[in-house]
This record gives sequence, structure tokens and C-alpha cells, in this order.
Amino acid sequence: MKKYVFGTPIPTGAVVAEAEQCRAEDIPYFSVSDGNVLNFKMDNDTAVYGLGPNVRGINKRGWIYEAFNTDEVLHVEDRRRLYGSHTYLLIDGAVKFGVFIDTAGFASFDIGYTKSDDLTVTVGDGNFTAYIFEADTLTGLVKELRKLTGSSYVPPLWAFGFNQSRWGYKNEGDIRSVLENYRRMDVPIDMITMDIDYMDHYKDFTVDEEKFPKFPEFVSEMDKEHIHLVPIIDAGIKAEEGDPVFEECMEKGYYCKKADKTPFYLAVWPGKCVFPDFMNDDAARWFGDQYKFLTDMGIRGFWNDMNEPSIFYSFDRLKMVMDKIGDYKDKDLDVSAFWEMQALLSKISQREEYTKDFHHTVDGKLISNEKLHNIFGFKMSKAAAEGLERLVPNERTLIFSRSTFVGLHRYAGMWYGDNRSWWEHLKLNVRQAAEANMSGFIYSGADIGGFGSNATEDLAMRWLAFGIFSPLFRNHTALGTRDQEFYRFEKLDDFRNLVRLRYALLPFIYSEVMKTACNDDMYFKPLSFVYEDDKRAKEVEDELIVGDSILIAPVCEQNRTGRYVYLPEKMRLYRMRSQTDYDTQVFEKGDHYIECALNEVLIFVRPGHVLPITDARSVSSSYDVDFDSLTPLKFDENERVEYIQYFDGGTTREMNFEKFTRKIEF
Amino acid sequence: MKKYVFGTPIPTGAVVAEAEQCRAEDIPYFSVSDGNVLNFKMDNDTAVYGLGPNVRGINKRGWIYEAFNTDEVLHVEDRRRLYGSHTYLLIDGAVKFGVFIDTAGFASFDIGYTKSDDLTVTVGDGNFTAYIFEADTLTGLVKELRKLTGSSYVPPLWAFGFNQSRWGYKNEGDIRSVLENYRRMDVPIDMITMDIDYMDHYKDFTVDEEKFPKFPEFVSEMDKEHIHLVPIIDAGIKAEEGDPVFEECMEKGYYCKKADKTPFYLAVWPGKCVFPDFMNDDAARWFGDQYKFLTDMGIRGFWNDMNEPSIFYSFDRLKMVMDKIGDYKDKDLDVSAFWEMQALLSKISQREEYTKDFHHTVDGKLISNEKLHNIFGFKMSKAAAEGLERLVPNERTLIFSRSTFVGLHRYAGMWYGDNRSWWEHLKLNVRQAAEANMSGFIYSGADIGGFGSNATEDLAMRWLAFGIFSPLFRNHTALGTRDQEFYRFEKLDDFRNLVRLRYALLPFIYSEVMKTACNDDMYFKPLSFVYEDDKRAKEVEDELIVGDSILIAPVCEQNRTGRYVYLPEKMRLYRMRSQTDYDTQVFEKGDHYIECALNEVLIFVRPGHVLPITDARSVSSSYDVDFDSLTPLKFDENERVEYIQYFDGGTTREMNFEKFTRKIEF
Repeated sequence: MKKYVFGTPIPTGAVVAEAEQCRAEDIPYFSVSDGNVLNFKMDNDTAVYGLGPNVRGINKRGWIYEAFNTDEVLHVEDRRRLYGSHTYLLIDGAVKFGVFIDTAGFASFDIGYTKSDDLTVTVGDGNFTAYIFEADTLTGLVKELRKLTGSSYVPPLWAFGFNQSRWGYKNEGDIRSVLENYRRMDVPIDMITMDIDYMDHYKDFTVDEEKFPKFPEFVSEMDKEHIHLVPIIDAGIKAEEGDPVFEECMEKGYYCKKADKTPFYLAVWPGKCVFPDFMNDDAARWFGDQYKFLTDMGIRGFWNDMNEPSIFYSFDRLKMVMDKIGDYKDKDLDVSAFWEMQALLSKISQREEYTKDFHHTVDGKLISNEKLHNIFGFKMSKAAAEGLERLVPNERTLIFSRSTFVGLHRYAGMWYGDNRSWWEHLKLNVRQAAEANMSGFIYSGADIGGFGSNATEDLAMRWLAFGIFSPLFRNHTALGTRDQEFYRFEKLDDFRNLVRLRYALLPFIYSEVMKTACNDDMYFKPLSFVYEDDKRAKEVEDELIVGDSILIAPVCEQNRTGRYVYLPEKMRLYRMRSQTDYDTQVFEKGDHYIECALNEVLIFVRPGHVLPITDARSVSSSYDVDFDSLTPLKFDENERVEYIQYFDGGTTREMNFEKFTRKIEF
Repeated sequence: MKKYVFGTPIPTGAVVAEAEQCRAEDIPYFSVSDGNVLNFKMDNDTAVYGLGPNVRGINKRGWIYEAFNTDEVLHVEDRRRLYGSHTYLLIDGAVKFGVFIDTAGFASFDIGYTKSDDLTVTVGDGNFTAYIFEADTLTGLVKELRKLTGSSYVPPLWAFGFNQSRWGYKNEGDIRSVLENYRRMDVPIDMITMDIDYMDHYKDFTVDEEKFPKFPEFVSEMDKEHIHLVPIIDAGIKAEEGDPVFEECMEKGYYCKKADKTPFYLAVWPGKCVFPDFMNDDAARWFGDQYKFLTDMGIRGFWNDMNEPSIFYSFDRLKMVMDKIGDYKDKDLDVSAFWEMQALLSKISQREEYTKDFHHTVDGKLISNEKLHNIFGFKMSKAAAEGLERLVPNERTLIFSRSTFVGLHRYAGMWYGDNRSWWEHLKLNVRQAAEANMSGFIYSGADIGGFGSNATEDLAMRWLAFGIFSPLFRNHTALGTRDQEFYRFEKLDDFRNLVRLRYALLPFIYSEVMKTACNDDMYFKPLSFVYEDDKRAKEVEDELIVGDSILIAPVCEQNRTGRYVYLPEKMRLYRMRSQTDYDTQVFEKGDHYIECALNEVLIFVRPGHVLPITDARSVSSSYDVDFDSLTPLKFDENERVEYIQYFDGGTTREMNFEKFTRKIEF
């Protein structure tokens, strides 16, 4: 692993290992021009991986991507940026290598978009460090990247249970009712998420006392049911006189500033807000300490949001726009003036220009957010994670973030943001799961059923059939959309069987995640990362290898009763309707059309491997799951197989492969 | 075929045949409630077809669709309405029947969205005619619908050539340059479309004299090159004193009116506009006559747009909004007031409420557009087609429309509106092609390469490989997007070979379209319409049967070198790189993974069938194509096969199967 420093990069905190420093002009593979443009010539067969969860294929070739974290509400093919920046690429062609561009500012990755064989990386102002790493395999490259950027965060065991969420649970009563409904349906559950509704006027580190009159008691009540509440925390702090968090933030100067050092006021959910300056170590520590308000009440799980950061408008900009709009009022508007005026207002949210308007204080100097933009969410969630480590030193806590950067995987999980109830986004979820794992975000997932838009029952069920394998296993939807808790639908038995199957798989999923984290590996792997010499496997982006043992092939189309599956080796299918109701059959290496009814899950066990399951028929949460008595689903019934199980009780912060694994012979 | 009249429906003009009238309460299959709700219980295996080109699958089950024509810029899965209303369904389950809901107003089709086995049709105000038709096969149902609503329009032969378009060809020079570039690339071409840029301030029936100083001469110049110019005509007429079209429209009272009978002013591209009242027969005739301005200059092809109708804003609404916005100016805006204000302005375009604000004059009475909404585009394009028939009685002309209704297929073709350069929209195009054919719109197509967003070379090429089969064969893109004329890309030989392959297929495509039109059949058919007893075929929505002879299976994913193909019977593959460069192989009925490089097209010839091609290696337009000397691509080389070729010279308005077909023995 070698590093090449261009200009004077601002440290990002992404890297934890030392790499040999070489002269920038000696960087291999790339030709450099203009001090900030790196060009690599791809041969026809080169595939390019990396960039974290993003739009389009796992193989990123053929599009242009930009690293500039954005609260993007529409995850469609022509977008170039989403919430996070994972500025690395793994090149898989005649040569195999990885490159990580360590910069907190803008970068673009033109991967054969402008010219089919040109991979061109353009890095904002030319101040960055490029790390080049090599390995014989793609998994080897992933391990190298992880060596450089650190090992993965894991949450407590209960965070692998089922999580029900919705923007719009207004109060205790709503949350109790969710639990009651799932209890009545006999579906196990571990968590209920609390979206922005729970706060007092959307103020971080408050709880609305009308909606939750005795919140600590409510937390205990839920705790007795083994239900963890997972509140959201947003990046903006309401600018409200008298609010202690705001007042302390202002008093200590821990806020982001305009060039003239006055506070930068912006609007997000609470209305007028300031951003804590997460780049300032004291401010970051102070912010992390604020979580005490909730940990003291028994909360152990958090969901950090709006940290790209999302900005509805800045107050300076709004004033300017309102003044301009006044000018249009008495004009006889033609169409172009009308579009202009409409653009003025509609382009006020998520303006890239805001990143120039506010500043961080680093070593006493103001630096515009533009230059540090992509690590804002990273620093927020790192501050939170470090705060939680101080506050709850003896247990793992749950934390996941919308905005991410390379290195945040050491501190937190992630979810893939505001997707929609689209079949297309179920497919996207499958690809993003592999992409997040590549970056080290093993604990991650998408909103099952889709966040925006209205979910149909078949979509919710197919999504669940994939989601049961996802470490972060959350059903979530937006205000105003159709209810999509599983008990709202018709086929309750099928939904119950699928969620219970997740709990039957829990010992396996937990073990595979922990082993993956210990080994700097990926839990969800594209076929191309496991069967590197298989040309066909390279193009399969709708199947995944889970851990080491199984291949899954979710059905991601409406009105289908089966799908094509490519098997890179002979495997045994378990077509499961529940943990006890399944049929099984061996399939040869190659292409197969395989039936899969709406209530079925296709699991293929690899030769020499085993899928251990537990009896989850009567569990009501992860608390009841038996991690000891496991039943094997084998490739070959008559073959003895070994399974290495990792189990540590699920709360210790210690990661120790030797200590916490046991060999089971089946 | 029977009809059931509910309430007092306003005639739409969709139906041309008489059907036996029965009592509304005797309608079979459906239970009726509230006078406007029809409910049918679907069994598990029922598939539902119809509704014309729309989002989601060919099998429409599992979503809710609305008939209310809308200029929708984002064709994503959760939309319920697009540009046209094709208010019929074909039910394919234990019972097989069709229902056409003849109404010009709002209707919704809940096809198992709210409850999985409920098909619920809700028809606006309860005034409609329901036609029920039956047949043993899906194709039989299509023929019944065609019997009811009339046979399909076909354009002249040259309209089956290649059409290059772009919003943004500013003048003669730009158009000449398109032609020169294609000539240099040696790619045949028949048409260049003229988007709104050609008009004088976007006024219908004008040509900008600065951009086209001698337009009639320019038309002749192009004509000598066998290039047909195809100008756009929009629904709105610029309200400009002194403009003869506007003045005559006002003088004669041929405009749409507010409730107080004053003109309804709205804005579209030209700025302040009125809509001609296409429901008024005199106004419609007058509008059709206006095409004379362009036919006199030699124009024979038209593209009718913005006829949902699209409304950027009404002048009354704009004034109201501007007044309200003034109120916000001095307020201290909180977030909800800000969203409110933003919504005020952003929801001003395409407001459903406008349909209540303007009225048509029918039999001397004002009727709000709301009640006639879905036939506005139909009536505009019908007026144009009838005008052209008067103006150019002895030749077929080209006309296609964005907004459509059942019955417009008698007068015009259609294109599927403003898609995007998305792989997802290439897939959508495949499905919509089948859906348009079901409705009788045989001459139809999508913008190849995609209208909005930036096309990549691989997408453009894969789209072309499907597009060469599309009767309307147009490359079109929006202002501000990446250039996507084929000569802009790198692999010129491959693009040339594909376009030339289209011309080699032209005798076949033309013949199949004409036979289809004569026989009230479909040119593009889903597999489920040809192999009705094949359960697997029912779920295949990414392959199509073209005419009678072939099955096509376009590759619709990025970075793929092949795809799965289901063959419902044994077929012979021709994997074509050009008309002379191909390999061939017989595949058995069943599932296959078939390689298909970026420059290849998969064509499967059915047993007993033949694909006749002509030598298009040196043609420069359809004018040069040899329709007589055809070479057969057969299923079985050693078998004698007959092909019925339809050829009529390509301009006559006479449709006559006996007169214009010949049997060829290969």
C-alpha cells in the first residue's frame, strides 16, 4: 500500500494505517494532468467496483459519479450523487488494483461515460492523497482497503432483530399499538424506530412531553417487552432562545459560521437552526455528550439523519429570494420569467452553494464547508459514536447514519436513505447491499417496503424475503404514504413465516456478520467477488453470496412466480416457506429458471457448507433466540460439515475471533 | 359485443360500430355500486391487460391507474397517469373478456392494488358506457376491441425510415448539418424532426424567417435528398394581436372559454395562449385547415404535442399566486410556511383544477374540460388528420400525437412521450410497444436513446437494437442533454450496421404493419398473446413477437454480454451484427442464456416462418429500398416457406389486403 500526496490535503480521518509515501508523480496506473486529473485506460473487459451504495450497477462502468454528499430524494439512474462519498475504486481487469482518493471535497469519477475506455478521476482543488493498493483478488483488495481504513463497527445483537418504523408515529399510543399489532400477529420484533415526530418541535435531545408524558417509564415498559426504541437525531440544532443545547452551543462558539464569523442560520425540520461544528474536536465531543439525555433514559440505539448536511434554505438566501420575487410581482410575466421565478424558489433547497456560505473552525482557522463537505456526516456520527462509548462504555450501542464517508464504518452502520416503494428500488437494494459491504458498512440496509410512495403487498413481501438477510432489518415509510406494517396486509401467515425465518437465521446472520467484521471481509458479496474466474458470474448483479455458506436470489419483479438463477457451482436449493416448510433440490452449475411463489425464499447452500438454523417458532424477540441448538441445512445430507459459529452474547465491545468462536460438527 | 349505458354519457367519438344495448343493471362479470363503481373478483391466476402505454408491467395487475391525461415528466413506477387514456381492460383468467369504459372524464382502475383479488373501476361522475366483449383468445379480444373502435391508421412508407430529432436544432444550418453528418457516416435517413425551435416565437403555423429564410426552398432541398421534415404543432395558440391564426380563432369564437364565456388564457411555450376548442366541430375543421400553411410548403408529416393539454399556468392562477406570495414576503417564514409558499408556485403547472376552469362549446352549451378532458388530444389530432385528408387527399400523411384516447388510432400514431435516457426506460419501451399495439396504435414508438437526461453510448446502441423494429423509429432528445445523434459516438460502424439492418428489414416491417392494420391485429405482441396456454410465456415481458415471423429479445441492462431468453417453441436464432454478418443456431423450446454483444441483435425465427430481408447496403433512404428482391432468413433452410408480402408503394390511402399482397415462396 502506497500513498501519493497531491498539493496540501486537509486530513479527513478516513485512514488509520500508515502507508509508504511516494512522490505524487510516481503514481502507477494513472497519468496525471492539471494536478487534479487522474486518467486510467480500461481494456474492454475491465469492471470497476466501489464508490459505496449508489445508483446503477455494482459494476460502475459506463457512468459518471460525483462525490459530494447530497440529500437526494430521487434515486434514479441519471443521478450522480447520493448521501455519502466512498471515494475508492477497485479495478478488475488485465491489472487488478485499488485506489482511494482521500479528500473531503468534491471529486468526480468518469468511468467510461465520456469515452468508453477512459477512467478519469477529477479531484476538486487538487489537494488530496491517493492510496494505491494491490492484491490478487477482489476480496484481497477489500481487505487492503479495510487495513487502510480500519475494521467495521458492529451493533448489539438486538439490532439484528426486526425493526418497525414509520415517519408519523405520533406518540406513545401509536408505538404501543405497533407492538400490540405485531404481538397479535405473533411476529417477533426487537425495535421500534422513532422518527422526528417524538421530539419537542424537532429539537435534538428533547422528547415532546405531551406525546410522551413519562418517557423514561415508557422506555422501561418497552424494555420489559425486549423492545428497543431507536430515536432519530438530526444534524441541525434549533435556534431557540432558552433551549439549553442551543444556548450552550452558542456560548461556546461550537456552531458553523459565515465568513464574518457570525452564526450560519439555516432551516431544516425545526425551522431556524445552526449546525454544530463537528470538525472542531471540542464541539464534536460536546455533541457526543448530548446523547446522555437519551442514554440516561435507557436508550441504546440512534439513527443520525440529515447530515449531508441537508439544508431546506439558508436565511440569507431566503431573504434574497423573497426580495427578488417581489420584483416579479408587478411584471407581466412571460414564460421564461415564470420559469426563472419558479427556479429561484425551487432551487433554494440543497443548494451546492451553501457549502461555500458556511465554515468550520479547524485549528482556529475558518475553512468553508465546501472543502470539508463530504466528512460532515462522518464527523457527526463519529462524535455520536465516541460519545456513546464514553456514556455506555461496557456495551455496544446501535448507531446508523445517512451520510457516510470512508472510515465511518469503524463507528456506525448506515442505511441507504430515502428510497421508494418501487420494484426498481428493491433491485437497487440488492446491489447497494454489496456496495456498502465493500466499503466496510456491514451493518446496513435499505428501508424495506420503500420509504416514499405507496407499497403494494406483493412488493412488501418480496422485499421482506430479501430483507430477512439484511443485518439492518427495518420496515420504514414516509409520512403520507400507505401504511406498510406487515399487519396491514392480507397474507399475515406468509409475512409471519418470513419474519420468523429471519429469527431462525439469526445465529447464522449474527455469526457471519461478526466473522466478516473480524476478518475485514464482506457479509454480502457479489458473485464476481467469490468466483473471480467465472466470466458469467461477473455480470450477475441480482444474486448475492451471504457470508460463506449460501447464495440468495430474490425475486424483484411484480407478477412473477419464478426467476432465472445463475449458479457458479453446483448447489442445493432450499425453497423455504417457513423454517419447517420447504422443499429442496440440487442444481448443477449453470443457468436455471427456478420457481418461487410470493411466499417463498430461495436459499442455495454451497458444497461443503451448511446453513445452521435455530427454532424460532415461538420467539418474540432476539432475546428468546436459542444460539446453541442449531439444525443444519446442508448441501449434502450425508456429508459431515463444520461450521464456525461466532457468538459473544451480543453486547460486549470486545471483538475476538478465537475467544468467541466454536466449531460445530454437523 | 354489448353495451351498458350508465347515466347520460357525453359521446366521445371512440366507437364506430353498433353494439347491442342492454340494461345497465345486466352488465355481466361486474357488480355495480354507487352508480359508478364496477367490481370484478379476480382469481389468483388472472392477468389483466390494457390501458395503453403506461408505467409498470404489461400485466397491469397490482397497481392503480387513473385515466386523466397528464403531461407527466417522470415515468416512474408510482405514477398513475400518463399522457393518454385507454380505458379498456382485457381479462385473462378463468373467464376471458374485455371491457371498454367509454368516458371522456376521470376513471380509476384499481387492479388488485387495494385488495389483491379486487378489480375496481370507478368512473368519475357515473356517466359512461361500458362495452363488454368476449373471445376465446386475447388476440380475439383485441380484434373485438378494434371492431368496436375502428381499424388502425398507417403513415406513408417513408415514415418507417430513420428519423433524427432533437429539441434544439436552431435553424436550417443545424438541420443540414445533421444530414451531412449522417451522409458522412453513411447512415440512411428519411426524416428530420423540427421541434418547437423552428417556429416564430412558438406560434403554430409559422416558421421563423431568420432561422429559415426560405423555408419552401429548404423543404424542396431536403425533398431532393429524400428527407422529410416533420414539424411539431402544439395545442396552444399564441394570444398575439395581429397574428392571423389567433385573430381568426378569436373572431369566430373558436377558443376555450371560462365559465363567463371570456377566453381562457394560459401559458405554454409561446407564453400567453388560448386553446382552440377542438370539441366544436367548426373550430376543429378550422384548426385542421391551418395545416395548409405547411402542406403548401411541401410538408407531409406532423407531430402533435402538448395536447393533454399541458398548461404551465393560467393567467388567473398566476395572478392569485403572485398576490399570495406577496403576503409571505414580510412574514418571518417558518418551515411549513416556506413549504406552503414553494408548493404554491411549484404546483401551478399541470394543475388538475385547470380542467374545471375552461370549457368547451358542445351543441351551443358550455361543458367544462374536466368532463371532456381525456379526448382533448384525440380531438386535436383527429382535426389535424381530417384536415390533412382534405388538404392532401391522394397520399397518406404522417401524424403522431402525444396525448391519445381510444379511437385516435384510426387517425394517427403516437409516441410515448418524454422518457429519459435510462436503461429502465428502454425496458419500459419494450412493454409500452406491446401496450400501444393492443390499443391499435401500431405506428408508435418511444424516443430512442431517451428524451430527458444524458444518454451513454451503450444505452443508445442497445436502444437502437430494439428500435430498429419499431414502426416509429426516432432518435430524439431534450434541450440541454448530451448530444445523441449516432454520429456523436465512438462505434460508428456498429451504429451504421444497426440502422442499415433496419432498412434491410423494411420490406418485412412495412408488410407486417400493413397486414396487422388490415387484420385488426398487433404488430408487437407479448408472448402471452401468442402462446396463451404457455404459463411461462405469461410472465415474459421483455421479449416480443414481431408480426408473425419472429421473436425479439433486446438486451436492456448495462454492462451485459448476454441475456436470458425464454422460447415458447423451438426457434432459430439469427444473431446479427449486420445484414450480412451473423451467426445462426437452433434453440429448443425453453430457457436459454444467450450471448449478445453490444453490436448484436437477437432475432429468433419461428418454425414454418421466414424473415425476408432486402439488400440495404447502399441505400440512403427508404426511397432506395428494393421491396422486390428479398432474401429469406428461414427457420429451416431446407424447408419451403411462403411469405405474404404487403406492398402498395407506400403512399396510397387505400387499404386492400387482396390487392396489395403477393405470396412469395422461399
